[in-house]
Amino acid sequence: MGFMAWGFVTNFFTYETTKSVVVKSWSVGIINRIVQLLIIAYFVGWVFIHEKAYQVTDTGIESSVVTKVKGFSYHESNVMDVADYIFPPQGTGVFCIATKLIVTKNQFQGRCAESEQKFKCTTDEDCSPSPSHTPGVITGVCLKPSNDSAGFCEIEGWCPAENDKVTVDPMDVKNFTIFIKNSIRFPRFGVTRGNIPPTMTSKEIENCTYHPETYPLCPIFRVGDVLNYTGQNVSTLAIEGGEIGIIIEWKCNLDLDITYCLPKYTFTRLDAPFANNSVSKGYNFRFAKYFKGENGTEFRTLYKVFAIRFDVIVTGIAGKFNTIPTMINLVAAFTSVGLAAVLCDVILLNCLKGAEQYKARKFEEVSEAQIASINQSSGSCLSLRPDKSSCDSGAVSLSNSDQPL
Amino acid sequence: MGFMAWGFVTNFFTYETTKSVVVKSWSVGIINRIVQLLIIAYFVGWVFIHEKAYQVTDTGIESSVVTKVKGFSYHESNVMDVADYIFPPQGTGVFCIATKLIVTKNQFQGRCAESEQKFKCTTDEDCSPSPSHTPGVITGVCLKPSNDSAGFCEIEGWCPAENDKVTVDPMDVKNFTIFIKNSIRFPRFGVTRGNIPPTMTSKEIENCTYHPETYPLCPIFRVGDVLNYTGQNVSTLAIEGGEIGIIIEWKCNLDLDITYCLPKYTFTRLDAPFANNSVSKGYNFRFAKYFKGENGTEFRTLYKVFAIRFDVIVTGIAGKFNTIPTMINLVAAFTSVGLAAVLCDVILLNCLKGAEQYKARKFEEVSEAQIASINQSSGSCLSLRPDKSSCDSGAVSLSNSDQPL
Amino acid sequence: MGFMAWGFVTNFFTYETTKSVVVKSWSVGIINRIVQLLIIAYFVGWVFIHEKAYQVTDTGIESSVVTKVKGFSYHESNVMDVADYIFPPQGTGVFCIATKLIVTKNQFQGRCAESEQKFKCTTDEDCSPSPSHTPGVITGVCLKPSNDSAGFCEIEGWCPAENDKVTVDPMDVKNFTIFIKNSIRFPRFGVTRGNIPPTMTSKEIENCTYHPETYPLCPIFRVGDVLNYTGQNVSTLAIEGGEIGIIIEWKCNLDLDITYCLPKYTFTRLDAPFANNSVSKGYNFRFAKYFKGENGTEFRTLYKVFAIRFDVIVTGIAGKFNTIPTMINLVAAFTSVGLAAVLCDVILLNCLKGAEQYKARKFEEVSEAQIASINQSSGSCLSLRPDKSSCDSGAVSLSNSDQPL
Repeated sequence: MGFMAWGFVTNFFTYETTKSVVVKSWSVGIINRIVQLLIIAYFVGWVFIHEKAYQVTDTGIESSVVTKVKGFSYHESNVMDVADYIFPPQGTGVFCIATKLIVTKNQFQGRCAESEQKFKCTTDEDCSPSPSHTPGVITGVCLKPSNDSAGFCEIEGWCPAENDKVTVDPMDVKNFTIFIKNSIRFPRFGVTRGNIPPTMTSKEIENCTYHPETYPLCPIFRVGDVLNYTGQNVSTLAIEGGEIGIIIEWKCNLDLDITYCLPKYTFTRLDAPFANNSVSKGYNFRFAKYFKGENGTEFRTLYKVFAIRFDVIVTGIAGKFNTIPTMINLVAAFTSVGLAAVLCDVILLNCLKGAEQYKARKFEEVSEAQIASINQSSGSCLSLRPDKSSCDSGAVSLSNSDQPL
Repeated sequence: MGFMAWGFVTNFFTYETTKSVVVKSWSVGIINRIVQLLIIAYFVGWVFIHEKAYQVTDTGIESSVVTKVKGFSYHESNVMDVADYIFPPQGTGVFCIATKLIVTKNQFQGRCAESEQKFKCTTDEDCSPSPSHTPGVITGVCLKPSNDSAGFCEIEGWCPAENDKVTVDPMDVKNFTIFIKNSIRFPRFGVTRGNIPPTMTSKEIENCTYHPETYPLCPIFRVGDVLNYTGQNVSTLAIEGGEIGIIIEWKCNLDLDITYCLPKYTFTRLDAPFANNSVSKGYNFRFAKYFKGENGTEFRTLYKVFAIRFDVIVTGIAGKFNTIPTMINLVAAFTSVGLAAVLCDVILLNCLKGAEQYKARKFEEVSEAQIASINQSSGSCLSLRPDKSSCDSGAVSLSNSDQPL
Repeated sequence: MGFMAWGFVTNFFTYETTKSVVVKSWSVGIINRIVQLLIIAYFVGWVFIHEKAYQVTDTGIESSVVTKVKGFSYHESNVMDVADYIFPPQGTGVFCIATKLIVTKNQFQGRCAESEQKFKCTTDEDCSPSPSHTPGVITGVCLKPSNDSAGFCEIEGWCPAENDKVTVDPMDVKNFTIFIKNSIRFPRFGVTRGNIPPTMTSKEIENCTYHPETYPLCPIFRVGDVLNYTGQNVSTLAIEGGEIGIIIEWKCNLDLDITYCLPKYTFTRLDAPFANNSVSKGYNFRFAKYFKGENGTEFRTLYKVFAIRFDVIVTGIAGKFNTIPTMINLVAAFTSVGLAAVLCDVILLNCLKGAEQYKARKFEEVSEAQIASINQSSGSCLSLRPDKSSCDSGAVSLSNSDQPL
């Protein structure tokens, strides 16, 4: 029993290495090294240096955006300030700057004539209730100034009906400035960053204006510049409204010093994918201010607001060295270097002069017939290891991955 | 010196290949090939074709959502239009459609009686200031119509106090339509897409209504349909309010043509995980409209708004061929195919008839004792390579990964 | 032809295994097993158990947040309730609680004197139109009480101009409570969760208050507690405003029961990265309430609101067992175990006594000269496999990855 255990221990602590054939051939040797070199170059240059495959990445960026717009401008002889033209007022990451307002004053609940051309009518039959877009419920009556003339269908709702066909000059918003405060966090690495470099002084921040080359880290953006960077026609945008994306990209290599983790601003027109569809051009919405008359009846002023909507979109990816991808890629690299051997074996055993002899040296053949004859005449000169007794030894060594997997 | 360098070069450009034993045995041979076939089938079928392990993926989707609701309906004999029932008005990705309003008109700052039953009192002692939810500060006085009857505690705040126990018929919102404009970008691949196919004409877009089978790409959704798709009771939702998720899923295989990268809409009730908790049923909020009386005092109308909140949630994953995951998975595949050898070795060396002979052929044994005796009687027949002189040669070849790693 | 096919089949179903040298040396054997053990320990302990490399992860969490604030407080002798101090009112994930209001009542469009010190003037020349931040357009006139005294520049816009230098006592918001309802979904795994455990009763939810140790799952947060958790000075925050992040982290191991997938709340001051920049301290915004006078002229009350903004930020990562990363890491593990052999070979062939003999046993040398001489004298004792005729056999076996790749 003790003898068997000892036998097991001695077998366990043997070391098994593959037997190799060393081929002293310049042609195969050079091909072998060149292929290996190419594979190593690919891994070092592309996989590790360019693609940074030794890093784990975090794209689940947490972000908080605060915006503040400054500026004032004239709209129809009124001076508009921030409280008038920003929606919503709280300085969120998505906000609108109104550029053109179509105002319908003093609307009361009641019945009145429609103003749109498609609701023109001559008889009540032309005013069948339809689900299409009206500012109120069509009552089915055709309101005509006199009995024989054409008129408009009557609606029930807020009266008078809005007429959004009027021409209004848009506000000049080019000189407004947008201040953006963005703080982010990469939760996987616990890294927190803000878009204002701590090296900037208050004075510098107050007086700078973002410029891609001269001031890429200034957090204050002139609206006119932003619109220009997107390549849009500013006056069309002011008339029809539009959606502009201010994209803050955080691409951080956390293996370097944290101060290199800086934001990059890009500007894009978000409705660009819809450029072909005329239906979705521009950006507008309606809201109302509500008032109360002396007798307590409520009335409202309806605004159709054409606005430039800014979406501050924060995106980010951070990478940091981690053992697991490094190891997996190293293993892949080493194993791939072994690929050279496959190619060289093919050349050696098939294309080279004396291939048969190389085969004879590389391969030793055992057939079932041979084994059978040996079993009959035991003690043959071929049984090189008559002292190998433990039947597990092979299995032990096999299960220990000295073998190529 | 030059001789040593030359020796190093010749050794460097040798090619080392493993010496193999070729076993001509049908049983082991067939097992070997079947196991290899299974492993290859797994990698090709599951890993590469099904799981697309040759792609890198981007889940950090950038998204911008614009919504526009259309429709009007009656609420307590008033016609409500978009400016009345949409919160906030700007058409953001998260918006509410008010369905029921409990209105408390003409509130002034002052003192008055509470309206809730739990603030009923008979003496001032019943009205101890409590942090619990009241519409104002409890003053500690019990207001009673006459001295002996029961009354309500007095509060200081906006008066009269809101009574939200009144029954109000909800608005019919089923025929409202929601138009959704969603533009996305996969920053890793620089791919921008919009949810309206460029092939749709303006006329088509204006007249279509989303349907999962017949019109899966129409960006206009009927509210009643959306509520039905979530399997909710529409009238309960209108009374209590609720949260509906409109999920836009972009699952894009960028190895195919970009036109196959299309959105998929699903609808879900977002408060479903809270179905068991009665406390968090429904959705409502309060807001106020402020007015000014003739004498300049401010008063307000308080609204408790029961609303259906729609969250347009955009999610996406894009995959594209990349060499690194492809290579890692190929290496894993090739290495795994080698696993067949482990299994076959176990069978060959333990289970097969003549296993001892196979072992004898596969393994060559060297013991320290043998080496010691050879060292004494140099020039033995075992020293097959007397000309191998450079002591580095083994190390050179070893460090070059001809060896299985 | 049939013979050749049969030969191909027999060659295909041979099994090729590497020939190994078994070294019976205690030193190398023990080193071999220790290195293997260390590698296995690293993979099992770090890669698989600690880093859970057998899982695929999903960070593309879909989230929906509903908030509801309760409480009331005095501001300048007025009782403020939710409708007064919450912006926006709908209960979104980003909301502000106003703490201090600077009110400028009864502003009309017109001309009036500025109130800021930097617009002090003695002559009209001091009032050159500047693009800097004023509440209106500078007309270029210096308004002076009398001809010889100093005055302020005249502006055109909403008059009177705001004077935001007044001191106002902030509201006490410490006892307000925030109720957060958050439902999430991991789209990759189709798992939906809510932040209120289904085991909590309505009564429990209504009466609990979040505490990191005693009540970590209660969804109701006292504002004062939240501010304390961030380590901020509450009274400074109330005066200047600030941005607080309520981070809900979902870290879910979906291999365990789904009930272990619970939220974790952390609290942070979001403007912390800007602590060094005095310019961006605090948080405030302006909005206006609009009124109409008897004669129909519109006027407004401007509010400069200092507020505490709460951003409910939801972040999450879910992991679940998947065959592909498991397999890749297993392959890497097995291959790495083979690294032990490289180390042992170096020791065996260079450092050990009798290294030359080990080399002689491990390496069999074939030189081009030998092959040439054999080719001349065919039938040599070295041609062990004279019956190996098919020239493809080597290639077949090579292309089948019995070879280490």
